[in-house]
Amino acid sequence: MSLTPEQRAEIEAQRGASQPTRRATVAALEEILFQPIPLLDHGFVRVIDYMGDDGAVVQAARVSYGKGTKRVSEDRGLIRYLMRHRHTTPFEMCEIKYHVKLPIFVARQWIRHRTANVNEYSARYSILDREFYIPAPEQLAAQSASNRQGRGAVLEGAEAQRVLQILREDAELTYGHYEEMLNEDAQGNVLDPARSGLARELARMNLTLNTYTQWYWKIDLHNLLHFLRLRADAHAQYEIRVYADAMLDSVRRWVPLTYEAFADYRTGGVHLSAAALVAVKRMLAGEPVDAGECGLSAREWRELMRVLDRDG
Amino acid sequence: MSLTPEQRAEIEAQRGASQPTRRATVAALEEILFQPIPLLDHGFVRVIDYMGDDGAVVQAARVSYGKGTKRVSEDRGLIRYLMRHRHTTPFEMCEIKYHVKLPIFVARQWIRHRTANVNEYSARYSILDREFYIPAPEQLAAQSASNRQGRGAVLEGAEAQRVLQILREDAELTYGHYEEMLNEDAQGNVLDPARSGLARELARMNLTLNTYTQWYWKIDLHNLLHFLRLRADAHAQYEIRVYADAMLDSVRRWVPLTYEAFADYRTGGVHLSAAALVAVKRMLAGEPVDAGECGLSAREWRELMRVLDRDG
Amino acid sequence: MSLTPEQRAEIEAQRGASQPTRRATVAALEEILFQPIPLLDHGFVRVIDYMGDDGAVVQAARVSYGKGTKRVSEDRGLIRYLMRHRHTTPFEMCEIKYHVKLPIFVARQWIRHRTANVNEYSARYSILDREFYIPAPEQLAAQSASNRQGRGAVLEGAEAQRVLQILREDAELTYGHYEEMLNEDAQGNVLDPARSGLARELARMNLTLNTYTQWYWKIDLHNLLHFLRLRADAHAQYEIRVYADAMLDSVRRWVPLTYEAFADYRTGGVHLSAAALVAVKRMLAGEPVDAGECGLSAREWRELMRVLDRDG
Amino acid sequence: MSLTPEQRAEIEAQRGASQPTRRATVAALEEILFQPIPLLDHGFVRVIDYMGDDGAVVQAARVSYGKGTKRVSEDRGLIRYLMRHRHTTPFEMCEIKYHVKLPIFVARQWIRHRTANVNEYSARYSILDREFYIPAPEQLAAQSASNRQGRGAVLEGAEAQRVLQILREDAELTYGHYEEMLNEDAQGNVLDPARSGLARELARMNLTLNTYTQWYWKIDLHNLLHFLRLRADAHAQYEIRVYADAMLDSVRRWVPLTYEAFADYRTGGVHLSAAALVAVKRMLAGEPVDAGECGLSAREWRELMRVLDRDG
Repeated sequence: MSLTPEQRAEIEAQRGASQPTRRATVAALEEILFQPIPLLDHGFVRVIDYMGDDGAVVQAARVSYGKGTKRVSEDRGLIRYLMRHRHTTPFEMCEIKYHVKLPIFVARQWIRHRTANVNEYSARYSILDREFYIPAPEQLAAQSASNRQGRGAVLEGAEAQRVLQILREDAELTYGHYEEMLNEDAQGNVLDPARSGLARELARMNLTLNTYTQWYWKIDLHNLLHFLRLRADAHAQYEIRVYADAMLDSVRRWVPLTYEAFADYRTGGVHLSAAALVAVKRMLAGEPVDAGECGLSAREWRELMRVLDRDG
Repeated sequence: MSLTPEQRAEIEAQRGASQPTRRATVAALEEILFQPIPLLDHGFVRVIDYMGDDGAVVQAARVSYGKGTKRVSEDRGLIRYLMRHRHTTPFEMCEIKYHVKLPIFVARQWIRHRTANVNEYSARYSILDREFYIPAPEQLAAQSASNRQGRGAVLEGAEAQRVLQILREDAELTYGHYEEMLNEDAQGNVLDPARSGLARELARMNLTLNTYTQWYWKIDLHNLLHFLRLRADAHAQYEIRVYADAMLDSVRRWVPLTYEAFADYRTGGVHLSAAALVAVKRMLAGEPVDAGECGLSAREWRELMRVLDRDG
Repeated sequence: MSLTPEQRAEIEAQRGASQPTRRATVAALEEILFQPIPLLDHGFVRVIDYMGDDGAVVQAARVSYGKGTKRVSEDRGLIRYLMRHRHTTPFEMCEIKYHVKLPIFVARQWIRHRTANVNEYSARYSILDREFYIPAPEQLAAQSASNRQGRGAVLEGAEAQRVLQILREDAELTYGHYEEMLNEDAQGNVLDPARSGLARELARMNLTLNTYTQWYWKIDLHNLLHFLRLRADAHAQYEIRVYADAMLDSVRRWVPLTYEAFADYRTGGVHLSAAALVAVKRMLAGEPVDAGECGLSAREWRELMRVLDRDG
Repeated sequence: MSLTPEQRAEIEAQRGASQPTRRATVAALEEILFQPIPLLDHGFVRVIDYMGDDGAVVQAARVSYGKGTKRVSEDRGLIRYLMRHRHTTPFEMCEIKYHVKLPIFVARQWIRHRTANVNEYSARYSILDREFYIPAPEQLAAQSASNRQGRGAVLEGAEAQRVLQILREDAELTYGHYEEMLNEDAQGNVLDPARSGLARELARMNLTLNTYTQWYWKIDLHNLLHFLRLRADAHAQYEIRVYADAMLDSVRRWVPLTYEAFADYRTGGVHLSAAALVAVKRMLAGEPVDAGECGLSAREWRELMRVLDRDG
């Protein structure tokens, strides 16, 4: 993460200012407000604003006239009840806003979640920074043989070196040509007064997908949890998962009771299909169980055994 | 509006508390935070929470590292530019939450706006209050003869008296029967220990559509302005328009620059169709203009003349 | 369900017409197209139009140039894979449109699902029919003692009779007054030429919540399945569940492979929380299990035992 | 546009098949169904499926039991009324699905419209084709001096040649390295059996933003018109406008009455701000008009004069 001194000063100025408010306020989240959390080689995520707290979930569920909260144990019980029974609307009553710097190929996955508000830095209007994502050596994984969407073993030796060389050189080369076509650098200096420079909306097409972009992204708590369940999951691509993990940590600071219920009933839980449920019942009854006769494929059977910590 | 002493005390307790925050804060909106604004005979709207201010619109449009605001005149210019050119996403970066008490038939119109988050008081779970909307005499309008969706002259004399009598008596009667079927009153007192009481989810079906309900309603600024443009409009039904007007006033307090741009470019402006534009050009050129030859219907012609303050 | 002869004729005319199309077509769904399926005492649901079939899910998942389908067994495998791993977007590529007649209190629950397109019959513009939902005697349930949102035992004897009497008489009474205030009946006949009649947008407020309304409702297959999982569930209110059940049957006709996968992986399955999973693992290992030490509440423990067909 | 013989055969097979249906059918749209319309150098758009027609708009607006259409002149009048008064929900009752091949930087603009359903070809799972967008010489525009989002004069001579050379060479180079890192070509042939090959989800990051991607994209008519108003507009980037223009043509085939109303009331019309309306009224009254005193900026004044075909 490379911020300019001006950017650091702007962030510090915001962190230094404080006003009184009648709104629900969360000290543990205020603590990290505006601070960039470094991710990957040049990315970050930082919390810009938030609305509501655990109490706001309770308040909305009760449609109350005041804070709506009672004893902590009652609030906790209600939040867990709402999470368990998928009464999702009270969680929509909290909102959070992030500023994120991320590689374009990650942004393309991320934007598929349509329930958020987004303002992206415009390469039609402005010039992107000379910053590209180059994976750390331990992230240079081979294509998985068993899962067409996944990663296998880490590449090593010459093959790994060659990949890193390609990624670095191609990003530098195409970015250099981007500036040449624009006839301008990222600081706005004209390179050759005799030329016109290609329109920004066209020149950007020469950039590679590991170029960093940035956006403001705002979402309600329910939809954020849905995003995090998918993207903080082991099946998500590593490069988006690191963002989801950092955001999950901000959720823990912001709404600790909701976070706990989410961990217990969503991410830590498991969904059993009708066939898997039949298999579990038979196992509990001490009956012999066979994947096929329960209607489970070999793959589903393996997944079930793994979930139950059993030898397949 | 009839709040219980307990409700008033809860509201005052919230208004009395104050915490420091690093977030954008708007004093003019804090001033009215939590306070119910009385509407119709028993309704209200009150601001429960908000995120962002005019500066947050600018900050998101610039994807900035700090507050993003520069001189007020520059911020104002940018906000007006965004509004004029319908760059709507920066306005989605502000969020507001209301608590609203409103008649069910108004709630049914309101809920058609799908871009908000809602938690309604559940008549499946709880017992609704004995409160019904009875129009003020000056709102007892006849069906409009020219507009099937509109109101005509105000009813008078015996017809008006009879309408008020019906509305009052039927609401009281059906509510009384609601309690009888529930075998319980709104305070939770059992009426007849010998009876079981009908399930709440069934008993509610006997209530009339002017019974008051309430909800928490949360929306971003862009979608709120869209809602207000439709519902604070002269063609909207009076009973929803009073809510929209009160909320428009809260927008003026919250984001004054956005409010001004909205008034100048949306509510105060007018849309001319292709045919209407042709007519205006001819009028400006001093040519004779005829509705039919421009492709305008008689009704569209009258609307155009009214918009231009011309005699049709 | 009471259709006028004109309505029946219109429906039959549509059913009688046929055109050739290049689009994906589903014979089993065409069979019931436009036909009202009677529900409750005066309601119905009928399929008006549809887009796509099981093959369209496969086609979109493969972003294919042709039909995208291969052997049925491969298509079935892909659809089950998509359902199992919650790859939801291919299911959004099918769309269905219903015409529904339903009591207003059911419509108020239904409309909370925001991802559909809706056109409701306007009581601001038109006059509603004299039709009210009166529950069948076996649906007159008492309030559940254990679940504040549920029903208990069926009411009997005098209490049941009284409830039916109230519901019938109040609906008739308030509807009669609705006509009187309108000074017009549902056929558009003026009642008293000497009176003006109250505006429709006002008169409707005197109707009770069991009055029937109707709408066109259109939704994609993914969001429909989400709606059906919630509303065809045993916890849903009976009066909305009968609609969900009928629609689920139309899904079975329309996309049989998707329906089967949905039954196996969604409605027939079960979600185990982190704590419940721990309990199941211990039971499988033959260890003694205790609700509290696994972190399960008494209620969660009972639910788990029921799911596993075990004595609690 | 370069389709393989297999792709052409699949398309022709679909075009050749025909089934009877009871659904609304539009011959003019059936005519082009599945046919790719070539756009840019390798892109296309083709209509894959549709639901409804002009009659479906009328049917939903009337919540009718049959087709809902009456005489064409009445249907036309109703559709124009709905469009003029922004009664948008009946237009949501029609749905259309496209298959689109487009450069990634265009896809990034396009996806910002959140109200559609999308299935994109996955570069995490599959290998992208060796196809890049290289602008035609007449599209190689310089950056606009007056509009930071726009294009100025067309580049010529050596500068234009150099731009084309860069775009071609960099795309070829980075794509070649993509294959090298994958250790596989687009046909799935392994290049070097001694190497493992980088995971697809990583290798894709070396591609440039003019690489073509493709997706299935489905949307309702109302939201499609909103998309087209923005993207078929003169201010939209040329590379997305050509897609919008082709889709607008499919709308004309599909729903001719809606298309006409859209042209008359949306794209052909103009919005006047409150200040612009004041200026027009003064001009019509023969009064001297001055930008500043009406509250119009110099830029708004120029825009107004251009709209009215007047010399500024």
